[in-house]
Amino acid sequence: MRRLDTTEEGFEAKLRALLQRDEAAVAGISDSVRNIIADVRGGGDAKLVELTRKLDRTDLSCGLAVTEQEVEQAIAACSKEALDALEIAARRIEAYHDRQRPEDRRWIDDLGVTLGWRWTPLDAVGLYVPGGTAAYPSSVLMNAIPAKVAGVKRIVIVTPAREGKLNPLVLAAAKRAGVTEIYKIGGAQAVAALAYGTETIKPVDKIVGPGNAYVAEAKRQVFGHVGIDSIAGPSEITVIAEGGIEASHIAADLLSQTEHDKLSQSILLCCSEVLASAVAKAVEDQLAEHPRREIAETAWREQGAIIMCEDLADAARVSNIIAPEHLELCVRDPEALLPLIDHAGAVFLGRHTPEAIGDYVGGPSHVLPTSRAARFSSGLSVLDFVKRMSVTGCPEKAFREIGPVAATLAEIEGLPSHAASVTFRLEE
Amino acid sequence: MRRLDTTEEGFEAKLRALLQRDEAAVAGISDSVRNIIADVRGGGDAKLVELTRKLDRTDLSCGLAVTEQEVEQAIAACSKEALDALEIAARRIEAYHDRQRPEDRRWIDDLGVTLGWRWTPLDAVGLYVPGGTAAYPSSVLMNAIPAKVAGVKRIVIVTPAREGKLNPLVLAAAKRAGVTEIYKIGGAQAVAALAYGTETIKPVDKIVGPGNAYVAEAKRQVFGHVGIDSIAGPSEITVIAEGGIEASHIAADLLSQTEHDKLSQSILLCCSEVLASAVAKAVEDQLAEHPRREIAETAWREQGAIIMCEDLADAARVSNIIAPEHLELCVRDPEALLPLIDHAGAVFLGRHTPEAIGDYVGGPSHVLPTSRAARFSSGLSVLDFVKRMSVTGCPEKAFREIGPVAATLAEIEGLPSHAASVTFRLEE
Repeated sequence: MRRLDTTEEGFEAKLRALLQRDEAAVAGISDSVRNIIADVRGGGDAKLVELTRKLDRTDLSCGLAVTEQEVEQAIAACSKEALDALEIAARRIEAYHDRQRPEDRRWIDDLGVTLGWRWTPLDAVGLYVPGGTAAYPSSVLMNAIPAKVAGVKRIVIVTPAREGKLNPLVLAAAKRAGVTEIYKIGGAQAVAALAYGTETIKPVDKIVGPGNAYVAEAKRQVFGHVGIDSIAGPSEITVIAEGGIEASHIAADLLSQTEHDKLSQSILLCCSEVLASAVAKAVEDQLAEHPRREIAETAWREQGAIIMCEDLADAARVSNIIAPEHLELCVRDPEALLPLIDHAGAVFLGRHTPEAIGDYVGGPSHVLPTSRAARFSSGLSVLDFVKRMSVTGCPEKAFREIGPVAATLAEIEGLPSHAASVTFRLEE
Repeated sequence: MRRLDTTEEGFEAKLRALLQRDEAAVAGISDSVRNIIADVRGGGDAKLVELTRKLDRTDLSCGLAVTEQEVEQAIAACSKEALDALEIAARRIEAYHDRQRPEDRRWIDDLGVTLGWRWTPLDAVGLYVPGGTAAYPSSVLMNAIPAKVAGVKRIVIVTPAREGKLNPLVLAAAKRAGVTEIYKIGGAQAVAALAYGTETIKPVDKIVGPGNAYVAEAKRQVFGHVGIDSIAGPSEITVIAEGGIEASHIAADLLSQTEHDKLSQSILLCCSEVLASAVAKAVEDQLAEHPRREIAETAWREQGAIIMCEDLADAARVSNIIAPEHLELCVRDPEALLPLIDHAGAVFLGRHTPEAIGDYVGGPSHVLPTSRAARFSSGLSVLDFVKRMSVTGCPEKAFREIGPVAATLAEIEGLPSHAASVTFRLEE
């Protein structure tokens, strides 16, 4: 863990160095991903079966799809407590996203031109769900529910099934969220299948969800042919904390990100030396008995930081450079601090809103921009699953007013048919 | 030009083959783009000067930036007619985009949880403006004005200056639109400079605007480190036309896209054999004297199509497969047809709204999804230059209600610090 002080010399350069975690070395995998995509485009289902046997040690020769029966069996295997918790989370996520549906607009301007836009849902989306320890039922809800609320008809999950097994609560979450198809495939080959289709898997229009470096590179390579959401990096949290908050709470909040991945990054911004020391000690205490100690400790030692700030405005300024995925405002008056926050994926207000609330039951999606991407992008939302067509309609009178301007600009740009499409109608 | 009929056998497969124009062969350029990006990251300004001398035959050793004086001289060189037309276009584009600013939302749900979101602008964006014949002043307005309306403070243009020269009206448009910096660089090296910065050019947060295959591949490779808008392909138009519309008008509309590029695609959907033949003949007549005949004719012969449909609903169905960048509804009652349109970048209503109106003076941005990307993405808008942070705040009472659910799910997912961050506070 590093300690920095905003008043020390070269602070900003040191901070930027700290934030530069994951310039993924993709050069090496770019070509092999390109080959996998070409293989799946050429070889279809048979190639998927072959790759899955080799990479996931799973035999899919009897079928790629999860059957309705498998889903029902999975749900039967889940505890009532788990299903109940999933249901509460799902309802809260639905309620939040229901408010995100954007509205169509239409108006007539002073020349009489009809203007506006219409939103329509995507037809089909694919959701990548990582396998193994990172197979989170909550992420299925957080990815699929916004798509469902948007009105997407086909919601397809791909997820690698090591030795044929899938997490039962992942399947229960998929069913609850309205997922329509699930395939036991993963990696770049799953992304290729979603983008280009095979005999069994019809292509989708957009692919969302996190994955390893191969999945990320495959999403990058199919981008343009289909939509993609973003390139997800390791998780992060920044906590702005004021004296008087219980140090063990803040320590747990910081560790709640470091426990994800050795590259995860937790940063505390505070103005109180007493609090800083107390949190540092509480982190050590909690690490000592942490069930995922190796991951959490490595991430805290190598990526973590405590940064001393002059005041809360100074902390907000530093947070805006970090542009964190998750930002907790553990202060007495979070609403006063919020207007100073320019870049963050999700903001949590006050000491009773630990980030874990947002991971499960707050309502907003927990799929958020990482690695400073909050500078230019937003968390997953209904807007990712709809698109907008602009609408323009000129009655003849309005056309005669603005048409000549269009013709002039078309002439200047050397586009004669653009000009003619206007002048022919003006001469009518 | 191909003729198809929706009732013929294998129609949909033939249509899909027709639409598969531009699977750009990027495999070959991927590595050279990767090298250029690495060179600029390592070499900064000096490398930009070297690459620009080699590739654009332009000596920038006295400076990369366009000076205020150069801009003023350029504006003085423009005709009053051109500047007046630009001003009218700019005002209409501003007025349209002013309505796109999304609103912040806040509410308190039935448990007392504060929920909502806040939108904030990006700090800095880069706009790629192609050089040569494709340097369109209108595109500068269409890219920069939505960013300006969104509240972006730094708006940077990069544009290649073959032998040092820039289009004066492009500079005038940049000044009018509120662009803050202009650099005479292009290609993958310009994208690298925008993404990673050099001594002179501070990095931006997002890069938008069309470019050649190198620019597109460079945008793809820097995606994630910065935001990008989309990968632009050749332009397209689909016209749904009813009998009774003047054939020469529709022919000009079709040619207004084919004149852009040999890969541009114009498609007529109609139900009247008489109209189809009259439009085909009018296209030939207009091609015979077309100043850009070679481009327009090649595009029409190789990419163009007339598709006979059973009725307007059938035409809408076909248009939804095409998902065209531009869609004209040249029919008597366009408002009745509009609800059947699921996928299109921009829709133009009625016979007095040729697509060229939208290119210059309609108001919506003319930067639109191509190559069927309207299935999953929208035209450029204010939303491309803002991002949303979610906001969640639990008062203690609400926390005590939903916290246990979060803790249960965290336990199930094997994330102990997530659970502890909740349970510590519950035990308080």
